[in-house]
Amino acid sequence: MKTIIVLSGGLDSTTLLYKLIAEGKEVKALSFNYGQKHVVELWRASETCKKLGIEHKVIDLSNLKELVSNSALTSDMKVPEGHYAEESMKSTVVPNRNMIMASIAIGWAVNLDYDEVALGVHAGDHAIYPDCRPIFIQMLNDIAHTANFKPIEIYAPFLKLSKGDIVKIGTELGVDYSLTRTCYQKSEEPCGKCGSCCERLEAFEINNLVDPLIYE
Amino acid sequence: MKTIIVLSGGLDSTTLLYKLIAEGKEVKALSFNYGQKHVVELWRASETCKKLGIEHKVIDLSNLKELVSNSALTSDMKVPEGHYAEESMKSTVVPNRNMIMASIAIGWAVNLDYDEVALGVHAGDHAIYPDCRPIFIQMLNDIAHTANFKPIEIYAPFLKLSKGDIVKIGTELGVDYSLTRTCYQKSEEPCGKCGSCCERLEAFEINNLVDPLIYE
Repeated sequence: MKTIIVLSGGLDSTTLLYKLIAEGKEVKALSFNYGQKHVVELWRASETCKKLGIEHKVIDLSNLKELVSNSALTSDMKVPEGHYAEESMKSTVVPNRNMIMASIAIGWAVNLDYDEVALGVHAGDHAIYPDCRPIFIQMLNDIAHTANFKPIEIYAPFLKLSKGDIVKIGTELGVDYSLTRTCYQKSEEPCGKCGSCCERLEAFEINNLVDPLIYE
Repeated sequence: MKTIIVLSGGLDSTTLLYKLIAEGKEVKALSFNYGQKHVVELWRASETCKKLGIEHKVIDLSNLKELVSNSALTSDMKVPEGHYAEESMKSTVVPNRNMIMASIAIGWAVNLDYDEVALGVHAGDHAIYPDCRPIFIQMLNDIAHTANFKPIEIYAPFLKLSKGDIVKIGTELGVDYSLTRTCYQKSEEPCGKCGSCCERLEAFEINNLVDPLIYE
């Protein structure tokens, strides 16, 4: 099985990368610069790929910022603090982000004659992000089988798992979480206060583990 | 109704733009430079938009060329000559092109709080391009209703029409076909020999019309 992973450099997709390798798959990684404040996640993704000997491409989509600007992740809007499930976190939605990224990954997979595209979406995302829900992933899988002569499978094994479950799996796989980035803020070190940081810290806590990152 | 049109600068999408305006819609146009040889189509698209007073954005996706390179439209591969339905025309498929473009257009529509994305796909494309077939457009419409908080409609009114039918509609709408580009070759003037040119010339012939373009 040959797989393109959409790798954000965060905890979920990095764990998925380790899982794909453990499953014996041939993997290439694809990341996107879409003008996100937390662009440091891309350097973390690169470090992980270098460590694992995985080919990594970073595609510059920062010119899309002018089209899909209504998000706290890509504009002057403040990144909200507090727990993930809160209404305020909706400001962190980037219009159609996952469909855009998945479409490009599917194109690369077709071009390379690869079999699947792997996405690290998980159950904790569902409340806030329509493009992380099971119905979206099902439709993405359907269209990925139809849009080209070669059908591409969408692989999202964390779809029904929590971030805590993912940390458990990743710890068993030996994931180096010091090379991941979850925070949505621009700062080099994670803030520990945004919804993304809150969810991450809870995921380690629930497993009686300590997050190796140093927080501001 | 507020609509984003994916405008290639070709005959089909240009006719669709005139049709949207005739239907009283508020329209913005979106074109893509994806490293196509026939980049001259983008200048034609701009000229049409300027003539009609329509806002037009051209997004540079030429860095995707390294991911989706296996096409005669974007590589050193020769653009095939002869009729469109022939097997050889498959070399002009660009991996996942329409899904990538539609995804970005949907993102822009969500961002602007627009209602629909219009595509100029037609029945003559179905044999060669999986991402122009009714089943693909249906799935695209489904996912466009699901991927974001705001559902976006996919509007493809030429889906079951031939290029001849489109020229008939366009002529009634007063489309200036001298500002369109259909040829897949790099040359400033259309070649008259590639599948795309053959289909266009037939479309005018069948309507007893003369294509206003000057061929090489």
